[in-house]
Amino acid sequence: MIYFDNAASTAPLKEVIEAMNETYKTAWANPSSIHTEGQRARVAIENARDKVAEVLSAKSSEIFFTSSATEAINLMIPLIVESNQIQNIITSHTEHPAILKTLQSLKNINIQYVKLDKNGEVELAHLDEVLSNNSKKTLVALMHANNEIGNLLPIKKVVEICKKHQALFFCDMVQTIGKYKVDLEKLQVDFAVASAHKFHGPKGNGILYIKSGKKYAPLLLGGSQERNMRSGTENISGIVGTAKALEEFEKHFEDRSKHIENLKKYCVKKLIENFPEVSFNGTSQNGGLYNLINFSLPLKNISRQAIDMKFDMAGIAISQGSACSSGVNQLSEIVKIVHGEKSNAIRVSLSFDNKIEEIDKFIEVIKTKFMNIN
Amino acid sequence: MIYFDNAASTAPLKEVIEAMNETYKTAWANPSSIHTEGQRARVAIENARDKVAEVLSAKSSEIFFTSSATEAINLMIPLIVESNQIQNIITSHTEHPAILKTLQSLKNINIQYVKLDKNGEVELAHLDEVLSNNSKKTLVALMHANNEIGNLLPIKKVVEICKKHQALFFCDMVQTIGKYKVDLEKLQVDFAVASAHKFHGPKGNGILYIKSGKKYAPLLLGGSQERNMRSGTENISGIVGTAKALEEFEKHFEDRSKHIENLKKYCVKKLIENFPEVSFNGTSQNGGLYNLINFSLPLKNISRQAIDMKFDMAGIAISQGSACSSGVNQLSEIVKIVHGEKSNAIRVSLSFDNKIEEIDKFIEVIKTKFMNIN
Repeated sequence: MIYFDNAASTAPLKEVIEAMNETYKTAWANPSSIHTEGQRARVAIENARDKVAEVLSAKSSEIFFTSSATEAINLMIPLIVESNQIQNIITSHTEHPAILKTLQSLKNINIQYVKLDKNGEVELAHLDEVLSNNSKKTLVALMHANNEIGNLLPIKKVVEICKKHQALFFCDMVQTIGKYKVDLEKLQVDFAVASAHKFHGPKGNGILYIKSGKKYAPLLLGGSQERNMRSGTENISGIVGTAKALEEFEKHFEDRSKHIENLKKYCVKKLIENFPEVSFNGTSQNGGLYNLINFSLPLKNISRQAIDMKFDMAGIAISQGSACSSGVNQLSEIVKIVHGEKSNAIRVSLSFDNKIEEIDKFIEVIKTKFMNIN
Repeated sequence: MIYFDNAASTAPLKEVIEAMNETYKTAWANPSSIHTEGQRARVAIENARDKVAEVLSAKSSEIFFTSSATEAINLMIPLIVESNQIQNIITSHTEHPAILKTLQSLKNINIQYVKLDKNGEVELAHLDEVLSNNSKKTLVALMHANNEIGNLLPIKKVVEICKKHQALFFCDMVQTIGKYKVDLEKLQVDFAVASAHKFHGPKGNGILYIKSGKKYAPLLLGGSQERNMRSGTENISGIVGTAKALEEFEKHFEDRSKHIENLKKYCVKKLIENFPEVSFNGTSQNGGLYNLINFSLPLKNISRQAIDMKFDMAGIAISQGSACSSGVNQLSEIVKIVHGEKSNAIRVSLSFDNKIEEIDKFIEVIKTKFMNIN
């Protein structure tokens, strides 16, 4: 099977699996226990926290482990709103549902949506304008990279604009942490979330970054784990696996990102050569995430699911958008914005273990199975 | 190291580790993806749900996977309160902090604490009385087994009393699911929670049972996983590991529970023989959890932590109460209730891989290191 759905999830690295297996043997006790077995688990967690902090250029005290980015978003945003007397939130229509639904569930909050240009990019002048016209305490929630079309937010500029207006900035970095070198200290975002299974780590593990100097009530109440921030016995193996995945990312970043970038360029070139009718969604032809291409082809009379399934039968795992919306026979919000009501949007999301021959096979499958070119 | 702290956490079974490792290879894709890789992950999750439901005599549709019992408690209780217009909650002072703190964080709710007898057992007549004097919609939240002294709640009687008064019943079954044969259909509790790492499953995995026929808003918002109940990409390996741990529990229940019961009896007998001054906390001498003993000895001038550490240095991992409160130099609420202000409360919590020789060693360590008997 050719796997081109790495934005949905990635295979755990063998180094990650090994590190987790080690914890099953040596660091499985309750990290809150005083005895040696418990303390070994505690040390494993704190070493993992230090490693995550190091890779992300953050302080260890700014890193919290959660069970998913979704959990971090759902539980942290209401705390930010309450602790900072936020009355106004600025976001975009193309955020992940975890963000959009959480924001929409808040009571007594005014939500404003920043304008997107025809490529689906945030209009910074509009963000600045909305913030200027706003005297209330504001939280800005925007994703670093769009999970469907791969557009990248000019994050430094967004931070500047937020700072200028004393707005807090919550950044969904699920598609960039573990793929890009991120320096959280320099970036100066206030809050960020990441998801381990998006960078070859384990499922069920998220990272929450909270810039230091801020105090928040707990995400979950109980035994006061995670320095009273998130109760519940810690998922030691998952935490260790998360750190290991980031460590491996850092170690191989140059080679692997170069390789993936080359694959993307090759795929774009081959798509244009073979299908002059191809159109790219968002900025993915020449920009955006280096591991993601989102394109449309003039395919008639074929539903979204049928496209996915036809690829699957040809041995290619691909999706037309986020996995959350798979099985829904509708175009996603972002694709509608950037490309109108086109009938399809094919997302190729690559990882370091994809190969050039797989792109060739992919092009061949489109030719023979979809475009009837023999 | 002799490990007598199985109420805090248990070592994952080799069968559990193997099952999880299998998922790392074959079922790691996003279960929401349409392609074969995703569908394999989906099937793994649904098979696990069926297995959990079978072991607990529940319907698959009544089982939800969470990242911990703490998460399930924190997120489910407010939903129950809201959906059922609960105005009154009856609980006890000796519930787990995840329950107590969650209940105390609710707004506009009247909380009543049921009386406990001198052994720390819930006074059923008082529960009945409190419910009788109450015309408001009520939720009862009581744990099936106390995690510190092992008292068992007469759960069937509590269900009867709740039904009589049309109260809902939320049962923290963290110390009993995976240790006792539980038939949720027969028991008729409305809600129950369990934690996989307490029954030799993986950390970071909880089970939430919701008796069918009830509709609740989601625990977490986002991609609508877990039939829209809990968003966030599913922790496939953890879910599969949880089911495997319950499967192994069921397979070996007779032998293993018998073995553990014998260990407990032997330990109680040896404690009495060797230290006539011993006193047992709660019902643990002859009753309560078959894997737990909680006792006190007249040890002078030694702090709680020092006791734990002294045992640790002698090669015995033990605790004086829940791991959550380890490191806190105070007696827990339940021990204060059942035994006054005694200076110590030693909890021995056993698993199937403990041995009779380990009990002998334990007695020997108490003799020589604590009681100065040579």
